[in-house]
Amino acid sequence: MAGSTYGDIFKITTWGESHGKAVGVVVDGCPAGLTLCEEDIQKFLDRRRPGRSVYATSRRESDIVEILSGVFEGKTTGSPISLLVRNTDHHSADYSDIADKYRPGHADYTFDAKYGFRDYRGGGRSSGRETIGRVAAGAIAVRLLNELGISLLAYVKSIGQIHADMEKFDPGEIGRNPLCMPDALAAARAEACLGACIQNKDSMGGVIECVISGLPAGIGEPVFDKLDARLASAVMSIGAVKGFETGDGFAAAAMHGSENNDPFITDYEGHIIKQTNHSGGTLGGISDGGELIFRAALKPTPSIAQPQQTVTSSGEPTIIEIKGRHDPVIAPRAVVVVESMAALTIADLMLENMGSRLEYVKKIYNK
Amino acid sequence: MAGSTYGDIFKITTWGESHGKAVGVVVDGCPAGLTLCEEDIQKFLDRRRPGRSVYATSRRESDIVEILSGVFEGKTTGSPISLLVRNTDHHSADYSDIADKYRPGHADYTFDAKYGFRDYRGGGRSSGRETIGRVAAGAIAVRLLNELGISLLAYVKSIGQIHADMEKFDPGEIGRNPLCMPDALAAARAEACLGACIQNKDSMGGVIECVISGLPAGIGEPVFDKLDARLASAVMSIGAVKGFETGDGFAAAAMHGSENNDPFITDYEGHIIKQTNHSGGTLGGISDGGELIFRAALKPTPSIAQPQQTVTSSGEPTIIEIKGRHDPVIAPRAVVVVESMAALTIADLMLENMGSRLEYVKKIYNK
Amino acid sequence: MAGSTYGDIFKITTWGESHGKAVGVVVDGCPAGLTLCEEDIQKFLDRRRPGRSVYATSRRESDIVEILSGVFEGKTTGSPISLLVRNTDHHSADYSDIADKYRPGHADYTFDAKYGFRDYRGGGRSSGRETIGRVAAGAIAVRLLNELGISLLAYVKSIGQIHADMEKFDPGEIGRNPLCMPDALAAARAEACLGACIQNKDSMGGVIECVISGLPAGIGEPVFDKLDARLASAVMSIGAVKGFETGDGFAAAAMHGSENNDPFITDYEGHIIKQTNHSGGTLGGISDGGELIFRAALKPTPSIAQPQQTVTSSGEPTIIEIKGRHDPVIAPRAVVVVESMAALTIADLMLENMGSRLEYVKKIYNK
Amino acid sequence: MAGSTYGDIFKITTWGESHGKAVGVVVDGCPAGLTLCEEDIQKFLDRRRPGRSVYATSRRESDIVEILSGVFEGKTTGSPISLLVRNTDHHSADYSDIADKYRPGHADYTFDAKYGFRDYRGGGRSSGRETIGRVAAGAIAVRLLNELGISLLAYVKSIGQIHADMEKFDPGEIGRNPLCMPDALAAARAEACLGACIQNKDSMGGVIECVISGLPAGIGEPVFDKLDARLASAVMSIGAVKGFETGDGFAAAAMHGSENNDPFITDYEGHIIKQTNHSGGTLGGISDGGELIFRAALKPTPSIAQPQQTVTSSGEPTIIEIKGRHDPVIAPRAVVVVESMAALTIADLMLENMGSRLEYVKKIYNK
Repeated sequence: MAGSTYGDIFKITTWGESHGKAVGVVVDGCPAGLTLCEEDIQKFLDRRRPGRSVYATSRRESDIVEILSGVFEGKTTGSPISLLVRNTDHHSADYSDIADKYRPGHADYTFDAKYGFRDYRGGGRSSGRETIGRVAAGAIAVRLLNELGISLLAYVKSIGQIHADMEKFDPGEIGRNPLCMPDALAAARAEACLGACIQNKDSMGGVIECVISGLPAGIGEPVFDKLDARLASAVMSIGAVKGFETGDGFAAAAMHGSENNDPFITDYEGHIIKQTNHSGGTLGGISDGGELIFRAALKPTPSIAQPQQTVTSSGEPTIIEIKGRHDPVIAPRAVVVVESMAALTIADLMLENMGSRLEYVKKIYNK
Repeated sequence: MAGSTYGDIFKITTWGESHGKAVGVVVDGCPAGLTLCEEDIQKFLDRRRPGRSVYATSRRESDIVEILSGVFEGKTTGSPISLLVRNTDHHSADYSDIADKYRPGHADYTFDAKYGFRDYRGGGRSSGRETIGRVAAGAIAVRLLNELGISLLAYVKSIGQIHADMEKFDPGEIGRNPLCMPDALAAARAEACLGACIQNKDSMGGVIECVISGLPAGIGEPVFDKLDARLASAVMSIGAVKGFETGDGFAAAAMHGSENNDPFITDYEGHIIKQTNHSGGTLGGISDGGELIFRAALKPTPSIAQPQQTVTSSGEPTIIEIKGRHDPVIAPRAVVVVESMAALTIADLMLENMGSRLEYVKKIYNK
Repeated sequence: MAGSTYGDIFKITTWGESHGKAVGVVVDGCPAGLTLCEEDIQKFLDRRRPGRSVYATSRRESDIVEILSGVFEGKTTGSPISLLVRNTDHHSADYSDIADKYRPGHADYTFDAKYGFRDYRGGGRSSGRETIGRVAAGAIAVRLLNELGISLLAYVKSIGQIHADMEKFDPGEIGRNPLCMPDALAAARAEACLGACIQNKDSMGGVIECVISGLPAGIGEPVFDKLDARLASAVMSIGAVKGFETGDGFAAAAMHGSENNDPFITDYEGHIIKQTNHSGGTLGGISDGGELIFRAALKPTPSIAQPQQTVTSSGEPTIIEIKGRHDPVIAPRAVVVVESMAALTIADLMLENMGSRLEYVKKIYNK
Repeated sequence: MAGSTYGDIFKITTWGESHGKAVGVVVDGCPAGLTLCEEDIQKFLDRRRPGRSVYATSRRESDIVEILSGVFEGKTTGSPISLLVRNTDHHSADYSDIADKYRPGHADYTFDAKYGFRDYRGGGRSSGRETIGRVAAGAIAVRLLNELGISLLAYVKSIGQIHADMEKFDPGEIGRNPLCMPDALAAARAEACLGACIQNKDSMGGVIECVISGLPAGIGEPVFDKLDARLASAVMSIGAVKGFETGDGFAAAAMHGSENNDPFITDYEGHIIKQTNHSGGTLGGISDGGELIFRAALKPTPSIAQPQQTVTSSGEPTIIEIKGRHDPVIAPRAVVVVESMAALTIADLMLENMGSRLEYVKKIYNK
């Protein structure tokens, strides 16, 4: 409960601070027999690595993952999988000036309020480096989901006021532009905005959208562990996320029932499907067999180089100018984090759902 | 995990279907010594009760709560508090026609997909009556928070396109108009819209806002049990909620860091506070001592009297016309549910936070 | 965590005090599709009911169970099953004298130490009536296990110094004698001892043994959730249990490895089995396909009519003579409680084990 | 739930196999502000290290612990503490012969039955090396308990038929003899037995006793999370443990109530205490202020060099002779493991108990 463990059956525990020796994660409850190697995980970590463009911090971190346990002869054994990434690129000097000043928009003040003191180097546990554990674990969850015919796609839908035109949605484009947008033109316009933003020593927010295909109907538990609720918790637990919605989300609040309800029909094979997907793939918190769609709102990077008003830990007014290397926008690097948290949530709920029917239990135990 | 339990220390388990014998909740982990009587809980249940206006269903349910355990001589004993509300107003006939047709926007199809069959009477466990357990438990959490100087206020911020004017915010108005809006004029306009909506056999969505005052800084656990994440999960687990945001939420995604960051200052007593509250009262997932503010988007009531296209459980196309009594808008009755879920979340995290410092542990055990 | 919830997937929450309005349990996570009626549960409750012989209290409690939710048309729906038993036979006057005196061997003092005060009527939550919820839930777990070909048999192995002769083991005898011993002669001798004990206003302890047949190999999780560990926790949580062992248990500590190891062989069908069963059916905390065998030691009933030395809550020395009706031995009535806790534990671990292999997950989801 | 996580608030997750790259543990929920360094943990690990005498395996493992996170400037920060110990002394060749033969008394067969295959090198996750994580975490729990005035003492009470004479109990002796017995004469006799045992290529079991002093009354949760139940689970989860008892344990089953009940009296300062301690320090599952006493029965080491009958994974009868280095008795090396599991359990329940009274909650939040 102390906050570093996520999931009930497919359960992960992350650890590590920005400027400690290493960061890592323990994945417990992954089914045995899944083929897995370090490269499967490294690919995901590379997607969140800084230094890939001018719009991400220039810290050059190798972030090489090491599998310490739980894999034997190329397959998961059912034992906990421990993953470790050493921290290598420390510039503690960059942070020494802020040891006693509370950075606006950061967790410095709240960590002090909670614990009485804090590891002030680089944000400690509230640093973006905390997400390495999520992504390394998420890579395993994605491997598992892929085996079950489920795929995830996440991308940046908007940066500041610039929205991707979904009519021009091009999945191939997501990996091509540094902003992970599915629309080349929008990406180009957002880049221009970010250029100006960097000049102004300022930052921008953005929205990430995630689409999950192939998910069978029936996943998610009624009442408190609804699929939407668990996804919301997973995604809102990512550092800068301030909003979450599934399907039509906030827009649904302005709609009529006759617009928002999705009629049921059958497809050409006779399967029951929905004609539209305003629900975003869940009804009553349980997957309805349609595409699962959700969005996350990310606030602008709080670390900006402009002088900002703040106080010291003893309450003295002061001005802070945050030095060091910081992304002017968080959303592009958070895409893989959002995808990872979604995969972890779905993997966990799919394992949990296996006990939902006597018929399933008999299928496993009576052969 | 099967989805009917919420909370880790202040833990509740709800049970009961719309047309079963009763609904209820067990509250385990409430600290001993809290004064509590049935009236404390009944007041909350009365706020969610239908039949208070033309804009809510005309079912007349008494919903009288009975405390079965955990209270002795007017105080909680530390033992589980079992609360029971008998179901009294069944009109099973109203529902018989829909036993085999999937209602659009409802969980009929997904329950069948998950469990192989369902209790089709009135939605069973996915009915709005499931929230009685949440509200009864929430009343106890609110009692506890009040003892600690914390208060909660929730209201309807918008219905359809009609938004309360926050410049005219009047807390007294919330209890006066049947739509629980804090602005009489907006409420009147929304009532007019709803009147037209009822004529059209249609329904409307809405947005609920909740403000929590008096919460000390330091509540919420870093990483996966962030205060925002836990609130998101709690609120998104309420039937019709499709979106959640804290502070500036989705609007923050379109802002610059220089706008969104809240400068730290000191108040006249020398306490560190924030000059603005774009964060909505959390930084890094931990309460920052400011007002905690969040919003929930509720979809329009899926039960509408218009003919709707759907299929039977065997996949035959059919038309459904939902009879019975249904609210044309869910938001007003959900206000107390949102408030309850927020109170349960905060109570749980406050108890959890008690072990965060050696200093606190020593305060309890070394006296 | 506050102690009234047991199980992770097949999860139960019990509530209720000895002299409150009712006691009950909520069972969440039972697979849908299990046939279940009140009679299935009542049979179990009748086995723990007092008043069946002179060796059990003469309180005449009907203990009629009511299913309030989770069952529809004779089958479990996957929703929480709420079970309620009203308390009917209160003699609060019997207990008024002990409101301020700490009964030796009882939890009066520790409840006061923990909570600052207590419901002194009949032991409140530490009363034997607390086990009604366990047994009602256990009946459902047993139903589920029976569907999977698993059966449980528990009995009293010894009372005081009188041990059942396992050479004369007669399962039919267990239900015939009031002491639930599998050996008529030992039961007769124990009855004689108890007769003398009652004369002396004293009480006796005993040992319960439980044997589980048909359990497949592979159940139990390595490390902290070993099958033995979970059973130990389940059984040691029953009021008067002071010891627990599996297989040869404490006797194994005095053995050599060459005696205690069970050789593997194959049976006539070629299945791998063990030649002996010193392990009691688990190896490394995982079921090994053999009979699961464990024992629980129950202390003598602490409520005895002899004058006993004690203190009042303010520390004044005093003498207490416990009136009212109390069993001179707990073990016979606890047999069904032990059986229930074992069934709950195994059901939970069997559901959890369903996610242990990719092969199983594919069997459910890829059909 | 997958079995590698223990505790609710003071929560640990262990990982690592015998012949993987490393073993370790993540401790989440340790209160901030506890002074801690690697030496505090190393001291505990050294106590479980093999190679200290001829009665323990001659593997020479350095088992050097590294703190990777959660400690800053010599104090815990409230963030997860990740501890890592590299595996260095592999002799995989020693084990290659047993890849396909099931060792009697080991978990080889049950791991195969559960997961479909296993890491056969040195027992994988069921190896004794798995306890390194428990002990490293236990060292931190002991540090915390010491700060609260609580101390733990564990020792070997018997080996085979040789029992320490408790009349001659000498705590200083525990660390002096290689068998960790508190009686030098018994230790000498047990050494002689073990010498003969080694000659016979056989092994012996033993009993460990643990005494905890300074524990305040009120710790432990009623019903399922009783202090006894949680300790039982913690201790029975250690590899070779087959039995557990508190206080008089199994002996209580043969006693009368008048013998087993502990009268309450007051000490010279007027505090309520018990005159005797048959209960072993708990009443109703809650600590009663007396010394907490429990015992664990450990089976003889299953790895013996004698030829043993077994089968291959395909069911062919065969003979196995286990080579390599194995302790002839497990109990002495398990002493620190038992102590660690007890400390972890008590630390967790003490943190949980902080929310048991409104008075405590107010003490923390209203100052």
